[in-house]
Amino acid sequence: MSKWDTNRADKTSRMTAAAPFARGKLVEAADATSLLHAVIRPGDRVCLEGDNQKQADLLAKALAAADKGILHDLHMVQSGVVLPAHLDVFERGIATHLDFAYSGPQAQRTAQMLYAGKIALGAVHTYLELFARYFVDLTPHVALIAAVYADRHGNLYTGANTEDTPTVVEATAFKNGIVVAQVDRIVDSLPRVDIPGDQVDFVVEAGRPFYVEPLFTRDPAAITESQILTAMLAIKGIYARYGVTRLNHGIGFNTAAIELLLPTFGERLGLKHRIATHWALNPHPTLIPAIESGWVKQIHSFGSEVGMDEYIRARPDVFFTGSDGSLRSNRAFCQTAGLYACDMFIGSTLQIDLNGNSSTVTANRIAGFGGAPNMGSDATGRRHPSEAWLRAGSEADTDSSPMLRRGRKLVVQIGETFGDKNLPLFVENLDAIDLGEKLRLPLAPVMIYGDDVTHIVTEEGIANLLLCRNADEREQAIRGVAGYTDVGRARDKKKVEELRSRGVIQRPDDIGIAVLDADRRLLAARSIQDLVRWSGGLYQPPSRFRNW
Amino acid sequence: MSKWDTNRADKTSRMTAAAPFARGKLVEAADATSLLHAVIRPGDRVCLEGDNQKQADLLAKALAAADKGILHDLHMVQSGVVLPAHLDVFERGIATHLDFAYSGPQAQRTAQMLYAGKIALGAVHTYLELFARYFVDLTPHVALIAAVYADRHGNLYTGANTEDTPTVVEATAFKNGIVVAQVDRIVDSLPRVDIPGDQVDFVVEAGRPFYVEPLFTRDPAAITESQILTAMLAIKGIYARYGVTRLNHGIGFNTAAIELLLPTFGERLGLKHRIATHWALNPHPTLIPAIESGWVKQIHSFGSEVGMDEYIRARPDVFFTGSDGSLRSNRAFCQTAGLYACDMFIGSTLQIDLNGNSSTVTANRIAGFGGAPNMGSDATGRRHPSEAWLRAGSEADTDSSPMLRRGRKLVVQIGETFGDKNLPLFVENLDAIDLGEKLRLPLAPVMIYGDDVTHIVTEEGIANLLLCRNADEREQAIRGVAGYTDVGRARDKKKVEELRSRGVIQRPDDIGIAVLDADRRLLAARSIQDLVRWSGGLYQPPSRFRNW
Repeated sequence: MSKWDTNRADKTSRMTAAAPFARGKLVEAADATSLLHAVIRPGDRVCLEGDNQKQADLLAKALAAADKGILHDLHMVQSGVVLPAHLDVFERGIATHLDFAYSGPQAQRTAQMLYAGKIALGAVHTYLELFARYFVDLTPHVALIAAVYADRHGNLYTGANTEDTPTVVEATAFKNGIVVAQVDRIVDSLPRVDIPGDQVDFVVEAGRPFYVEPLFTRDPAAITESQILTAMLAIKGIYARYGVTRLNHGIGFNTAAIELLLPTFGERLGLKHRIATHWALNPHPTLIPAIESGWVKQIHSFGSEVGMDEYIRARPDVFFTGSDGSLRSNRAFCQTAGLYACDMFIGSTLQIDLNGNSSTVTANRIAGFGGAPNMGSDATGRRHPSEAWLRAGSEADTDSSPMLRRGRKLVVQIGETFGDKNLPLFVENLDAIDLGEKLRLPLAPVMIYGDDVTHIVTEEGIANLLLCRNADEREQAIRGVAGYTDVGRARDKKKVEELRSRGVIQRPDDIGIAVLDADRRLLAARSIQDLVRWSGGLYQPPSRFRNW
Repeated sequence: MSKWDTNRADKTSRMTAAAPFARGKLVEAADATSLLHAVIRPGDRVCLEGDNQKQADLLAKALAAADKGILHDLHMVQSGVVLPAHLDVFERGIATHLDFAYSGPQAQRTAQMLYAGKIALGAVHTYLELFARYFVDLTPHVALIAAVYADRHGNLYTGANTEDTPTVVEATAFKNGIVVAQVDRIVDSLPRVDIPGDQVDFVVEAGRPFYVEPLFTRDPAAITESQILTAMLAIKGIYARYGVTRLNHGIGFNTAAIELLLPTFGERLGLKHRIATHWALNPHPTLIPAIESGWVKQIHSFGSEVGMDEYIRARPDVFFTGSDGSLRSNRAFCQTAGLYACDMFIGSTLQIDLNGNSSTVTANRIAGFGGAPNMGSDATGRRHPSEAWLRAGSEADTDSSPMLRRGRKLVVQIGETFGDKNLPLFVENLDAIDLGEKLRLPLAPVMIYGDDVTHIVTEEGIANLLLCRNADEREQAIRGVAGYTDVGRARDKKKVEELRSRGVIQRPDDIGIAVLDADRRLLAARSIQDLVRWSGGLYQPPSRFRNW
């Protein structure tokens, strides 16, 4: 051993310690915690695979069951803090430091543990940013990942939920780290190889699939007429106006409504083949009617969606699939696509302030960012033009010569003025600021900053922030679509009318949309069962979404 | 075949047409053009692998030799236009459309063929942006790639120059495209598997290595004292000031000088372990002294560099290497690291205008962008703080509350006021604008826009654009470091002195650097032979760099 391969020597020593628990690369599930005791060392950076969808749940539990006399002071670097075990690891004193990107169901407990000092927070990231740091200063010493099958050489089949796995494995395996995979089963031959075996050190047979959350399923039955109105405004006032063909949809009922209006309202406007043809998107069930109607040319996905496997397999012209026929998702590439190859990101949020900053953080929940900051940012490194991008750029900048005027990514926030639990969408100050101050963060956890937002859509209309020429216009444009919230009622009516006359604010009437037309009958599918019908029975919704 | 798997049926038909030329997946080099006639169809999007380093040169020639009665109207989507064959494909009428990212030696011929209408240009991209489009609207129908070895199942070993291969293959193979690899040799077992065989359709044995350009080698003997001065200014005035630990260096003699000053000038300033520890960087030979002196903690690389293989193999603590010991590079991940995980990009350019816009395009050369626009852009989606990033942000924005004030990526342009061929670095108007107008491009090919640039360093001093409060200050700050160029001589002397008094402009004196200290003796290595010595004989420079 020279002084230049200490990491490799260290790996060899760990592999030797692990040998008693493995036959070749194979480890019994019952020995998982013993394996982790052998391959992890105190102070290690450990990546426990888990995002907003798939989870290496067996390995998460095995780590949470570790002896803290053996494993302590771990630095967890992982996309998601989602399972109870992810926080148990901190509660039990096994890990102390955390860098992550997303916490859904654990948002409240995460905040509590941060307050209580049980977690030392590095930062909340957007996915692609965290992946980037895996190759620079947060390279994992050990990765605990999830796949569907392994063969005896450790080759892995990750199937439809490939997601983060190739990225996590590459950062770990090629920096002398140790990769441990949980798999449903060991098989003789794989449907396809997603991860080559020489990048995998150990395989634990779980005897059951890893956990996957059906996060991208929205029941059309729950879509309101107010959401339908916002969807109509978006389609006519933004998609059609800019000619948006390449896009990402955040998850939520407003964007689900847009997906379900394409084959009806969109068709009537003659927009087929002219908008929404190329997507960076998970396989949203609510996009099935648009796909079946021939609207969608191609979709690349971050991950899969529960129940969509057979449908995807039958639509290989649309989805990225492997030689085995199942989806190949890849979060890193799909986030890259969302950043650089899409002209629009549209999504919902919980709070928007007077500058257009938005956040999903509320006073006691630190929800994480997921992909929104990445896809909802204007990539100033982009150099290829498109109609939508150039038009948005020309609205924002009337000073520069056209030869030196970049375009703009369309970043749209859509929602009702009063959202979930009747809380106002618009606020004077984001709760994220309070949370940041309480936790003494260097920055408030803002999801999308106002300077990246181009449009805000509510049932009251569209605010086009590209056309605002100063901070005051921007504030009044936001107030002007904020309805009966306090922020909305405090508008300067004269200024708002002036902005409307300039097209900065557009009411439904202004673009020829009658509020009364916003009717549920416009939805191409009005229930999960309708979606199943559209799919010819290929979509198999999880039981929680079935009521027939 | 259903109407939903036309692509797969199409692939089957092509594979059948190709069968006469293949035994299993293996194709003789002499049959390469016949194979391409069978697997490519007119109008296809074809990705011919090749970036600024590695080239699928055998396949490029095979395509250029195609019968244009059979193959025509191809749309080439590829990182680099570098080999003569890349343009022969257009000259001969086989391809008509081009989307690319980089053209080095072919920059002039590319411009000529654009003028002559022989190439219909989509856009010039930055690498990561083009990769993004591979998954959205520029998905290749056929990918022609390069690897070192294949086994009989089509598994590929790409070795140190993995570079773009996994990205190109993933976009093509999982969208029912056809992947053809040229390899040096077919072997029984691979040192490691970089690309699983089920993603590869055909393997052509070249019997020789693919071409690689040693683009990142700079001979220390050619570094001038003026470049040494700029390097000293950058180290003390920027690296130390902001505490930059995570960074990328563009290629050039100025940045090579910085690399060679770290173990001398940097050491004297007590900066070891405090700056320049984590890199997104190709294995620059000029970084060897800093590595050997213990400055460098970790490097992730876009590609490899000719002659560095044995050195890298002996330094696995520093580089990302595979189980076989050789480098694993990956352009997509390294560009992502440069975008989101680095606090600084520093590089050189050919022209800078009064707004700080810069370009490597001159009147008759369309050089492409490579990675600079991506790494030299302020990623507004970034959410994790660092000392360097927050400090840069606080200099630029003194209005926002700290809780809502993002940091800034440091984007530094470094060069002498009169550069190559004694041409002025500073100009009133970029040649890129003329070129854009002549070619009727929607946008001038600007490499880095002024709004992303934070500092300009010349032998006259540092202009800190973060501290400029309006366009006029910005212009005078730029003029103030532009020396005896026309732009520099037209400065407003009083304004420049005021900017200097505020620290917006810093002369060498102002930060305690004596111009006379900028001496070649400060370089840790003064020749290629010195670099070889530093490496203990492990660095094996290409013959063109050897003069002993």
